[in-house]
Amino acid sequence: MNLNALIETSGEWLRGGGPESDIVVSSRIRLARNLAQFPFPIRASDAVKAEVSELLCNRLLDLDFGPQLYSLDVGDLNEVDRQFLVERQLISRELSDGVGPRCVCISREENLSVMVNEEDHLRVQVLHSGFSLGDTWSQISELDDNIEQHVTYAFSDRFGYLTSCPTNCGTGIRVSVMLHLPALVLTKEIQKVFQALQKISLAVRGLYGEGSQAMGDFYQVSNQVTLGKSEQQIIENVQEVIPNIIAYERRVRNKLVSENRRNLHDQIARAYGILRNAQTISSEETMHLLSSVRMGVNLGLIDELEMATVNEMLIQTQPAHLQKLRGEDLQSAERNVARASYLRERLTGDFTG
Amino acid sequence: MNLNALIETSGEWLRGGGPESDIVVSSRIRLARNLAQFPFPIRASDAVKAEVSELLCNRLLDLDFGPQLYSLDVGDLNEVDRQFLVERQLISRELSDGVGPRCVCISREENLSVMVNEEDHLRVQVLHSGFSLGDTWSQISELDDNIEQHVTYAFSDRFGYLTSCPTNCGTGIRVSVMLHLPALVLTKEIQKVFQALQKISLAVRGLYGEGSQAMGDFYQVSNQVTLGKSEQQIIENVQEVIPNIIAYERRVRNKLVSENRRNLHDQIARAYGILRNAQTISSEETMHLLSSVRMGVNLGLIDELEMATVNEMLIQTQPAHLQKLRGEDLQSAERNVARASYLRERLTGDFTG
Repeated sequence: MNLNALIETSGEWLRGGGPESDIVVSSRIRLARNLAQFPFPIRASDAVKAEVSELLCNRLLDLDFGPQLYSLDVGDLNEVDRQFLVERQLISRELSDGVGPRCVCISREENLSVMVNEEDHLRVQVLHSGFSLGDTWSQISELDDNIEQHVTYAFSDRFGYLTSCPTNCGTGIRVSVMLHLPALVLTKEIQKVFQALQKISLAVRGLYGEGSQAMGDFYQVSNQVTLGKSEQQIIENVQEVIPNIIAYERRVRNKLVSENRRNLHDQIARAYGILRNAQTISSEETMHLLSSVRMGVNLGLIDELEMATVNEMLIQTQPAHLQKLRGEDLQSAERNVARASYLRERLTGDFTG
Repeated sequence: MNLNALIETSGEWLRGGGPESDIVVSSRIRLARNLAQFPFPIRASDAVKAEVSELLCNRLLDLDFGPQLYSLDVGDLNEVDRQFLVERQLISRELSDGVGPRCVCISREENLSVMVNEEDHLRVQVLHSGFSLGDTWSQISELDDNIEQHVTYAFSDRFGYLTSCPTNCGTGIRVSVMLHLPALVLTKEIQKVFQALQKISLAVRGLYGEGSQAMGDFYQVSNQVTLGKSEQQIIENVQEVIPNIIAYERRVRNKLVSENRRNLHDQIARAYGILRNAQTISSEETMHLLSSVRMGVNLGLIDELEMATVNEMLIQTQPAHLQKLRGEDLQSAERNVARASYLRERLTGDFTG
């Protein structure tokens, strides 16, 4: 698979469709699995990892299941290409920065990705746009069953699926929903959401998962417990709480519009103005401003922009994407200039300087 | 004269022509004069002031001199109209806020204005765009001679022209040049200019003269001494120093362009973007951003804008101008919205909200 082909398209999950897509960017489920016959990656030699990688890659590419998968040998990729896959949420930082034989199998639409030799032998992921945990679960469950027909998973009757880290043991499932909550952040109500989620053992993380900062008002809500509950129960836990957060964000947006429309519009219009005019801009500021613009599109305060375009710009302005788009390595200051050019081109059709 | 007619036009001095107009906005000379036969305004009763006002108004309107003058009874004007004249630099804050009979005679082109019963009986002013103290002096000198043919000025062989405040005594002249010095402000080199001017007894003030803050990087340089030197010497003092400040500002602009073009362009482009998109904006921020845009026009970093438009916007976005344009009294928050609308309309042709 040619990585450069990916830059021309954007993953299905970015196209901005799906239920509640004004607030829910994407729904994601991942399963941690290991093969019974091999030491887990954290204990395996490179030779064993190579064997596992080859075996799993072959099995995955041969699956008689929905979309065709393509494999990428992550160890063969340069740093920019690896970072590019991280930015697209197709691989984790851990797989990107890891050592030894490791690969990822991806579907053309980018909904499916299976990492091999990350922390576990297999990290199976399905990603959909909008709030659609049901579809996401159906697809990952089917994929998981298909894989299990060709390999033997490490499974204990007592502990369930066995994983490198005990926190993933049991179902091995992580259910995450990526939310865009600008109004709750603006009004500082977001703290109440964090507290409520903590009480029911749900975690809140930034755009790029564990350890990442929340940027541009994007938050991932996910389960922490994987043991002692069924997959359905865990999904339901998340599924039940998300509509409350959506309703809360909508309520606060409506309140802002009805009580302070002018200032809200001002903030959004200025953000849009800066994005269309800046000559150099950091990734952080871009996320921050695009977040305002995204809310503006949702509230009908910006007419001429599609949500899908905003979502795409959020990813395309990340460092590795910019470098792939430009076809050259760029230092941080050069990226800031390239980012500003890209934004002006996308938002005004003007491509100067 | 109908004040509303003025709003449709802009004074000659705003049209952005004249020598060195990239840096010198305008050249201004004013003369303080009093009539020998009447107590000075600070000691005069309202009856005397009324007599002086009528007498001088009649004389001024009858002058057989260049442009026809029109008179405005300042005491008759409401607060917005008075503030409007202050913003156009046709009258001083002192005349606007004063009490008792007082008036101003103005030429249609707004180059000439004669205040009656400000601190002195007469404050004669000539204002030209760009750096043109020579023309300004010729015109005010001719006007002064013309007036003197019809009245007797209070004059002492020892002290020269007598004035209410001793600091104006002698020549009664104030020569001011309004400079736009954004690069010197940006690099903090402006402090050196202040120090140098102080040493040669020249004063630096903001846009609206004495006591006003420098806004948007606009500074008025003027003489402090009026006694013991001839008018020509005083004008020469200012005339000689201004080219050095112009050269200094140009040098620093060129340095910024050659060493840090990207960041300078970024600052200017963002300012332009905010002005074209904001939904509410204060007078202070507007001045600040227009200052960047003005430099951008001069440096060729903004193509589609005329300097005259920028100069005009600096005045038209002032509180009283906005209210005259809208034809209604507006509170501060309403003015901020009206100002943003006006700027969007002027800069993008878009007039919504």
